[in-house]
Amino acid sequence: MTPIRIDALQYANWSRKIFEQMRDGGVDAVHVTIAYHESFREAVLNVEAWNEMFLRHTDLIRPARSAADVRAARDEGRTAIIFGFQTAQPIEDDLGLLAIWRDLGMRIMQLTYNNQSLLATGCYEAEDTGLTRMGKQVVAEMNRLGLVIDMSHSAERSTLEAIEYSSRPIAITHANPHWWHPALRNKSDKVIRALTEAGGMIGFSLYPHHLKDGSDCSLESFSGMVAEAAEKYGADKIGIGSDLCQDQPDSVVTWMRNGRWTRDLDFGEGSAAQAGFPEQPNWFADNTGFDAIARGLSQVGFDDGEIAGIMGENWLRFWEDAFEPAS
Amino acid sequence: MTPIRIDALQYANWSRKIFEQMRDGGVDAVHVTIAYHESFREAVLNVEAWNEMFLRHTDLIRPARSAADVRAARDEGRTAIIFGFQTAQPIEDDLGLLAIWRDLGMRIMQLTYNNQSLLATGCYEAEDTGLTRMGKQVVAEMNRLGLVIDMSHSAERSTLEAIEYSSRPIAITHANPHWWHPALRNKSDKVIRALTEAGGMIGFSLYPHHLKDGSDCSLESFSGMVAEAAEKYGADKIGIGSDLCQDQPDSVVTWMRNGRWTRDLDFGEGSAAQAGFPEQPNWFADNTGFDAIARGLSQVGFDDGEIAGIMGENWLRFWEDAFEPAS
Repeated sequence: MTPIRIDALQYANWSRKIFEQMRDGGVDAVHVTIAYHESFREAVLNVEAWNEMFLRHTDLIRPARSAADVRAARDEGRTAIIFGFQTAQPIEDDLGLLAIWRDLGMRIMQLTYNNQSLLATGCYEAEDTGLTRMGKQVVAEMNRLGLVIDMSHSAERSTLEAIEYSSRPIAITHANPHWWHPALRNKSDKVIRALTEAGGMIGFSLYPHHLKDGSDCSLESFSGMVAEAAEKYGADKIGIGSDLCQDQPDSVVTWMRNGRWTRDLDFGEGSAAQAGFPEQPNWFADNTGFDAIARGLSQVGFDDGEIAGIMGENWLRFWEDAFEPAS
Repeated sequence: MTPIRIDALQYANWSRKIFEQMRDGGVDAVHVTIAYHESFREAVLNVEAWNEMFLRHTDLIRPARSAADVRAARDEGRTAIIFGFQTAQPIEDDLGLLAIWRDLGMRIMQLTYNNQSLLATGCYEAEDTGLTRMGKQVVAEMNRLGLVIDMSHSAERSTLEAIEYSSRPIAITHANPHWWHPALRNKSDKVIRALTEAGGMIGFSLYPHHLKDGSDCSLESFSGMVAEAAEKYGADKIGIGSDLCQDQPDSVVTWMRNGRWTRDLDFGEGSAAQAGFPEQPNWFADNTGFDAIARGLSQVGFDDGEIAGIMGENWLRFWEDAFEPAS
């Protein structure tokens, strides 16, 4: 059996084809986004749609709520699906909804997407005011329940405050280092250092806007960045969070960026000229691209143990603790 | 340790006092109503309120989702709380919400309260048209998921059709035989016979409108009814479902009867002259009244095994299977 492989973020246009590619790519667990700007009720509808997929594709996927579930899925030859939100909208202004969502299987939540939320500041706001009053309550409640705080889309100060305020390690599930590719969504050395020194994890993204040279980013360049990050932060604190949005129509990236909050069209990391989803690098077009990443990591000198960690074991070890309620 | 005691229906104005009385009365598990006319979101708010109670009174109560949880609660010296609905309103017109509710701990649902629902006909309607199209789908889905169909407030034909259509035994959690006290809410011999012959259970009610002589009903009269029912239907098919609404203000019975569906005031089993909650019989004013019932059953000649069954073991055995998903 190959070492475990985990993707800490995908938001694909789910289909049997994609679930088969997960199996072909040896991907044992995927953190899937089930909500961006959805209300509580709308996000529940998305769970209902997943429940149907679990029934229809029960030979390929299964729900997972713990590291043990991920291991069980692997033993069964299925891919474990872990639910997460990219905004805090599905908890509305109601702290009690976090426990409800835990019962419904949600395990990872971003405190913000690109905008100011009720909890913290997103990376596209002009001013970053850090954790709000409710934000601190939500961090403490997520710590209590065993839910992972994800700051992938959050602004610098908010992220540093979440790391500091949280009594448990947090995550950046999908982003790259700013020193490799200075995109607004990529993270400063200061943030990644604070995150990993507190026991947190970062998942490296394969989304072209996060990559040096975008869609033309080479496997060597990506693997070299991972090697440098491993030296800086430790090979046990890093993993993959591909941000793969496979087979999605461009209307979906418009929804991700604009939700229902604006009358002016927001292009996020894109532009009016390049408004849609960018093309994936040819070595990571779908879940079978995990083979290429493993090969790339080997070529830049990682040993088998380090590769196994980065490809999945690090996330599994992190989840082992992070998904359990505080004792 | 005394034999297990289970109450298959209460809707009290929950307080530490009442949870202490559950312990004093040796009540190991209670099926509590968490929704009458509440929408999905409102019923979720009620779960949130219960989550707070579980935190505040963790020494007295705990959530339960299976017969094993009931046994664990008993071993811990706590009362197991099982969630149920008295209408189908919290699933709206959305079959997928049943699986959501199962994850949130709901285990027992009435297909109707007193009125026509999307699923079947309530006992106060002039015409009883039986299971609707959606009603049949809901019965099948509840069968699949391991949720108990409760027809306590439903009309005769609807109840008979639910018994017939369901592939698993169903329940009437709180009602009495019509032959003992011919109230509209009490059940015909035909219904109780069909129910129990199909492996279902009936819980006998201590709500005065369901009792012969109402608030003045004697323990002897009630116990005699149970003895006659045991002869007719089997001592293993009957239990207690007290319908205790302890410490509730009369505004709550008005809500139960009227919800938001009427401009004219409906008095249900009461009347304009007696609009509020009726007074409980003096031998069953709260959970400590379970001692009186056990005594009454002994006095009418039940043996210890039969008493243990009626007081709780029958419900536990029924739940053992009924709360598990179909295999």
